[in-house]
Amino acid sequence: MTDEDNVKKLLDMASKIKLDSKIKVHKDYKELCEAVESPDASKYFVFSIPHGPPGDKSVEGLKPYLKKGDVIMDASNEYWKNTERRQKGLDPEGIHYIGMGVSGGYQSARHGPSISPGGSEEGLKKVMPFLRQVAAKDKSGKPCTVPVGRGGSGHYVKMVHNGIEQGLMSILCEAWGIMINGFGMSYEEIAEVFEKWNKDGPLSIDFLDNIGVDINRIKDGHGDYVLGQIRDKVVQDVDESEGTGFWTCEEIARLHIPAPIITSAHLFRCGSADAAARAAVSKAVNTGPRPTKFDTGTDRSSSLELLRDATYASFLMAFCQGLHLINAASKDFDWDIQFASLLQLWRGGCIIQSDYIVDLLEKVYKEKDVQKNNLLSSPIIAKELTKVYPGLKKIVSKGVETDQYIPAISAALEFYKYTCGTDLPTQFMEAELDYFGAHNYSLKSEPLGKPEKGPHHFEWKRAEGIHGDKV
Amino acid sequence: MTDEDNVKKLLDMASKIKLDSKIKVHKDYKELCEAVESPDASKYFVFSIPHGPPGDKSVEGLKPYLKKGDVIMDASNEYWKNTERRQKGLDPEGIHYIGMGVSGGYQSARHGPSISPGGSEEGLKKVMPFLRQVAAKDKSGKPCTVPVGRGGSGHYVKMVHNGIEQGLMSILCEAWGIMINGFGMSYEEIAEVFEKWNKDGPLSIDFLDNIGVDINRIKDGHGDYVLGQIRDKVVQDVDESEGTGFWTCEEIARLHIPAPIITSAHLFRCGSADAAARAAVSKAVNTGPRPTKFDTGTDRSSSLELLRDATYASFLMAFCQGLHLINAASKDFDWDIQFASLLQLWRGGCIIQSDYIVDLLEKVYKEKDVQKNNLLSSPIIAKELTKVYPGLKKIVSKGVETDQYIPAISAALEFYKYTCGTDLPTQFMEAELDYFGAHNYSLKSEPLGKPEKGPHHFEWKRAEGIHGDKV
Repeated sequence: MTDEDNVKKLLDMASKIKLDSKIKVHKDYKELCEAVESPDASKYFVFSIPHGPPGDKSVEGLKPYLKKGDVIMDASNEYWKNTERRQKGLDPEGIHYIGMGVSGGYQSARHGPSISPGGSEEGLKKVMPFLRQVAAKDKSGKPCTVPVGRGGSGHYVKMVHNGIEQGLMSILCEAWGIMINGFGMSYEEIAEVFEKWNKDGPLSIDFLDNIGVDINRIKDGHGDYVLGQIRDKVVQDVDESEGTGFWTCEEIARLHIPAPIITSAHLFRCGSADAAARAAVSKAVNTGPRPTKFDTGTDRSSSLELLRDATYASFLMAFCQGLHLINAASKDFDWDIQFASLLQLWRGGCIIQSDYIVDLLEKVYKEKDVQKNNLLSSPIIAKELTKVYPGLKKIVSKGVETDQYIPAISAALEFYKYTCGTDLPTQFMEAELDYFGAHNYSLKSEPLGKPEKGPHHFEWKRAEGIHGDKV
Repeated sequence: MTDEDNVKKLLDMASKIKLDSKIKVHKDYKELCEAVESPDASKYFVFSIPHGPPGDKSVEGLKPYLKKGDVIMDASNEYWKNTERRQKGLDPEGIHYIGMGVSGGYQSARHGPSISPGGSEEGLKKVMPFLRQVAAKDKSGKPCTVPVGRGGSGHYVKMVHNGIEQGLMSILCEAWGIMINGFGMSYEEIAEVFEKWNKDGPLSIDFLDNIGVDINRIKDGHGDYVLGQIRDKVVQDVDESEGTGFWTCEEIARLHIPAPIITSAHLFRCGSADAAARAAVSKAVNTGPRPTKFDTGTDRSSSLELLRDATYASFLMAFCQGLHLINAASKDFDWDIQFASLLQLWRGGCIIQSDYIVDLLEKVYKEKDVQKNNLLSSPIIAKELTKVYPGLKKIVSKGVETDQYIPAISAALEFYKYTCGTDLPTQFMEAELDYFGAHNYSLKSEPLGKPEKGPHHFEWKRAEGIHGDKV
């Protein structure tokens, strides 16, 4: 499709809803820029396009016609390194490039999105009044946008938002699967459960849970559930139409953040994409394990409470993992992100909106001595997780017994256990590393210390075959 | 420590074992190169140093004194992109830069390492005779080195070796933890089990299992077990002294390979590193869950068989995940890696040596129609996994029930289930993505197809609040 075809399509769509008169078409960057030029005012541009080359092309096209003080707002899911590269190219000319994460999906066009802008202080000052107007509003009417920080921090935070989103979506679909296969529930029954969860308790006012009510209820023109017809393959990561999920996982690896809920969720999506490959394995293993009915030994409403606890525990830890990543990146890039105000971004308009959890996290960041790299050490989070751990454990235990699909929920359980573990089997791993690689270790008898190389090495296997002293 | 101090330290160590006369010291690159210069022969250099800037410094230092046909073998755990950058810089001069993964740890110096060299065809031809001499030999006397492929493929394959290694080390330490905490076994008893496993069956002639025998038995000069004194923190990833683990995870994300055993294992290590952070969480949650005794409902030797099955199943799938990654990279970079010969690298001298598994994989790559991106669809692998799935499931199920630490083993279980699943709860995830993002979907009634964007979208929530037809 040519550019002109695209424009025509847009105008056709707009004319159907009588909005075509609001759209002005310009044939090139020059004409566009001249149309909005004014000698004593800055020009403002916003675009939202696929990440990578399209953004470069737009910036190159605009650049010859820009003057000092002009502002480009890139509302795409752009890779934050591209954002910073473009900022470096435009900064010397005094042009502001605001990397601006926008969440909410196409539906949010109707109620405003969550907006996370990052860039120069001056540029942010210029765009915030506008962004506050168009952003979604939280329940108290406050806009869901704050200046995130310098450089590419706005796009980075949006990227992590999407990483957390992938975590939550996996957790919720796993819980949905347990209700279908484990509890034998109908779509309508699940809709009622999601409705109840969304109304009050730890999953209240949660976007993904809330739309799940509709999704379990909606029928097509033939009276059939739409959901029931949908193939179980999620392809937007493997086809690279969406980068934020795997960029988040790359950053988790690069910055050494234990965030296995997010990585496991992401890889589950990737694993789901190739349905033909899965069918080939299923054939080879003679079908393989399939989920069976699930008896928690209590009535269904108690089972559902356990499932809510497991879902909530996993949601809460997915948020913590994402926030640990943002904290590490803020340090790594010297962005100086303010966490207390940051959470306002996720108060409305965005996919990970989870009001109960965000209320909780806001309290956590107000605590004295909060460890921003270790949120589970907060008494507020610790209290919540202690309360719901039995449910999380029970659901995973029964889930394994009955062959449910629970990659993210079980990753949450393991993460929780080792994060509060003080005597892990990595003791044996550390000994092996020292045996073959002379990697050194610390002693249990020594203070806990920092995560630094230990002072001891043992010569486990001498050349002459005699085991000896530490060297 | 200055360079001169380093040289002095080396000579001191060498003199203790009467090897100092074999070492020639040169004060700079010029003197070194002149000493080995010959008008009618190429010069050969080998170095093994920390990745990144030290390699660049060495190449810059050598470059002025090199001539066409000279060869540098970089035996470091170098990042393959650095390798390719240096190759690009030296290629125009006709100098060969061989990126050469070397495995085996410092202990392998005694029996030869596994060596995975990559680079130009001509360069590889020049170094292979030498490498075949110094490499470890397998049980039939065949050297554990083969030309891997073009460019940085040698370092890449070594990187993935280390990623698989991190997977295996986590799995084995988790099994060790179950024997300690779940079965209440002593170090000596575990040594006997590892000895038995290493002798025959699916974990036979397995390097990590084999050194585990020693590690569980060795006592220090005071008669105390060395293992028992070692703190459970593994820091070499978080302190960036070792990059291969997290680079593998970055590549898993970038190339969309469902390899959750490797990522979960890696993040477990990272999570173990900060013992003080874990202690803070433990305090906040009032200790938190701790492993308890583990009753599989049968005698111990049957329980140990189940544990061996679980360990083997997880090992085998960790290998498959790593090989899927190498396959994707070989395509992505056009390296044309030959899998049938590749496995010879892992026959001896390396940390992931697992003879039973490598025998099996060699057979798999000889199969007609082997899906190199989907090894679990091989009848050979499928048969093995079908056999050991009950053990894997039982161990994870009981492990969850008794609060064992099993991040990698439980990731293996989930991976297996969804890889052969044909009706995953991602169906609900896909519906959610279409609801808020108009991401489109495929229908269950349509052919399985490729992992490509589906043709359908449903307008779940119309602006005017009416649900309608697909658009």
